[in-house]
Amino acid sequence: MTTLPSWRDTATRKTIVDFVESVTTGADAVPVAERIAVFDNDGTLWSEKPVIIQLDYIVGQWAAAVKADPSLAENQPYKAVATGDLSWLGHAVEKHYAGDDSDLKQMLGALVGLTDGMTVDEYAASVAEFFRTAKHPTLGTPFSGAVYQPMVELLRYLEANGFTCYIASAGERDFMRSVTQEFYGIPPERVIGSAYGLTYDADARAVKYSANLDFLDDGGIKPVRIWSRTGRRPLLAAGNANGDLPMLQFAVGDGTGRRGLALLVHHDDHSGRGDAPYDGGAEQALAADDVTVISVADDWEQVFPA
Amino acid sequence: MTTLPSWRDTATRKTIVDFVESVTTGADAVPVAERIAVFDNDGTLWSEKPVIIQLDYIVGQWAAAVKADPSLAENQPYKAVATGDLSWLGHAVEKHYAGDDSDLKQMLGALVGLTDGMTVDEYAASVAEFFRTAKHPTLGTPFSGAVYQPMVELLRYLEANGFTCYIASAGERDFMRSVTQEFYGIPPERVIGSAYGLTYDADARAVKYSANLDFLDDGGIKPVRIWSRTGRRPLLAAGNANGDLPMLQFAVGDGTGRRGLALLVHHDDHSGRGDAPYDGGAEQALAADDVTVISVADDWEQVFPA
Repeated sequence: MTTLPSWRDTATRKTIVDFVESVTTGADAVPVAERIAVFDNDGTLWSEKPVIIQLDYIVGQWAAAVKADPSLAENQPYKAVATGDLSWLGHAVEKHYAGDDSDLKQMLGALVGLTDGMTVDEYAASVAEFFRTAKHPTLGTPFSGAVYQPMVELLRYLEANGFTCYIASAGERDFMRSVTQEFYGIPPERVIGSAYGLTYDADARAVKYSANLDFLDDGGIKPVRIWSRTGRRPLLAAGNANGDLPMLQFAVGDGTGRRGLALLVHHDDHSGRGDAPYDGGAEQALAADDVTVISVADDWEQVFPA
Repeated sequence: MTTLPSWRDTATRKTIVDFVESVTTGADAVPVAERIAVFDNDGTLWSEKPVIIQLDYIVGQWAAAVKADPSLAENQPYKAVATGDLSWLGHAVEKHYAGDDSDLKQMLGALVGLTDGMTVDEYAASVAEFFRTAKHPTLGTPFSGAVYQPMVELLRYLEANGFTCYIASAGERDFMRSVTQEFYGIPPERVIGSAYGLTYDADARAVKYSANLDFLDDGGIKPVRIWSRTGRRPLLAAGNANGDLPMLQFAVGDGTGRRGLALLVHHDDHSGRGDAPYDGGAEQALAADDVTVISVADDWEQVFPA
C-alpha cells in the first residue's frame, strides 16, 4: 500500500480515502482552488507530551535570561525556571480559568519580553538555533523525530489530490515557521497561529516584535484566522483538542452546503509506541457530532518517523 | 515582443527585466520559494480616479439604506449620499488629519454598520452583485476594464519567472477577494488588505463581521501585514502613493542583504489614454531613493485592456 503506508487498513482510513475521492473525482468534484485543508499542530502534527515544544524553547530563553541577570529569579516565571519546578506555569493558567488573571499576565509579560524589539529575522535565528540542538525529552531525538509520521503522510496524500494544506495552531506562528517546511513541507505563508504584535521600523527597514500578544489563535479564533488568511472555508480540518472544535465544525459546515471532513487525533495508545495516552482537554471534541476520530492505537501502524 | 507587450522599450522596462533576470538566473539566483512580489491595488493595479472603486460600492450601499429608511438622511454620511454631494466624506478625512476625528468616526461607524452581523459569504455575494452591473464612471466599462493592462502583464511575467504575487492594499481585503482571481489571476489567499473585525458564530458555523475595523493596511502597517501573511520579506514591491513607501523600502531593504526592487506607478499621462494625471499623495514616494518610477506617459504603450 503506497498511499498512507503508516496507516492501518481501518474504517477511519477508509473514511478519509472515500472522502478525498468523493471531492476529487466525478461530476461533483470540488475545484482544486477550493481544496483547502487545515491542521492543528501540537498533538495533531507533532507530539505535545510530555512537553509543548514551544514551551521548551521559552523556558530555555527564560533560563538564559536568569543566567545573565540572577536577580530576575526573585520573580515569576523566572523563579520557576531557576528552581526547575515549573508547576507555577500550570497554576497561572488554572488561576486564569478560575477568574484571576494576575499570574497569567505576569507570565505573558515575560513571554512577550523575550521578543520585544527583536526583528523577525533575529527571532527566526534564535528559534533555528534551538532546533539545531534541542532533543525531545522522552524520544531522545531532535524534534524532527517527534512529528506524527501518519499525519505527514496525510499531508502528502492530500497534496497529491490537489489540496493545499495549512497549519492552524494556537502555537506562535513565527516559531512554527522556522521548521514547518522541513518537518511538514508546509511553507511559512501557510502557517496560521497565535501572533505577537508587530511594528515596522522605517529606519531599519525591518519588521520587529512589540510587547504584546496580538491574538491567541484557539477556539473560535481559529475559523476567524483561517478566513482572514485564506478567504476560504476549509474542506478538511484536523485537530486533537477542544480548541480545535470550532475549526472542525467550520470545515464540516451546517450540512446545507458542500461536504467537509473533520478529523480528531485521539491519543489512546497504551503500547508505548507513541505518546502516553491522554484525553484531557479533548472531551467536548471527542463527543462532537460530525467528527471522525483517529485512534492512535488502532489506526496507526507507526507513530513517529522510523 | 511577447514579454510585457503593453510596455514600451524604455529604461524602466529594462530595469525590471534586468532585475528579474538577476534574481532568477545564475549562481546568485534567489530560490523560487523566496520570490515574493507585493502589489498595491488602487492606483497600482487598477484605476482609483475619479473614483475609488470600493467607495463606489459603499456609497451605493448607503444609498440603498437611505432608500429603505429615509430618516437616515438626517445624518451623515447618509445625508451626503442622499443629496449627491459627497464632499462631506473628503472633509471628514481632512478633519481627521487636522486632529478632529469626530466625522471620520461617524463615517467609519456607518461603514462597518454595512457588514456588521453579515456572514462572509453574504458580503461576498453583495460585492459580486455590485461588480456584475457597476460601470466605471469615465471609462464606461465594467470595472474589469479599469485594470492597468501593463501591470497585469507584469504579474504574469513575474509568475513565469517563479514569483508568487500578492496584493497588499489599503482597500478592504474581502471586497477585493471577490474579483482578484478574475481581474488579476490572484487567488483570495494572496490578498492582503484592510479588514473588518470577524467573529465565529458557532451555532451557524459561520464567520461573520463585527462592528469594527480590525486594521487599516496602509503605511507602516503594510510591511507588518505582509510579514504576518507570508513570513517573508518581498523581493519586489509596487505601489503608487506615500502609503506604499514603507513596503517599497521593506522590499529594497537596507542594502546589506539581498537585492530588491521597488516600483512606483506615476500617473503623469496627459494624453487622455489613461487616468487624468495626479501627484497628490505620492510626493514622498516620488522623491524616495531606491524607487524605480514607472511613467504612465512614457513607459506604457497601452493603459487599459483593449
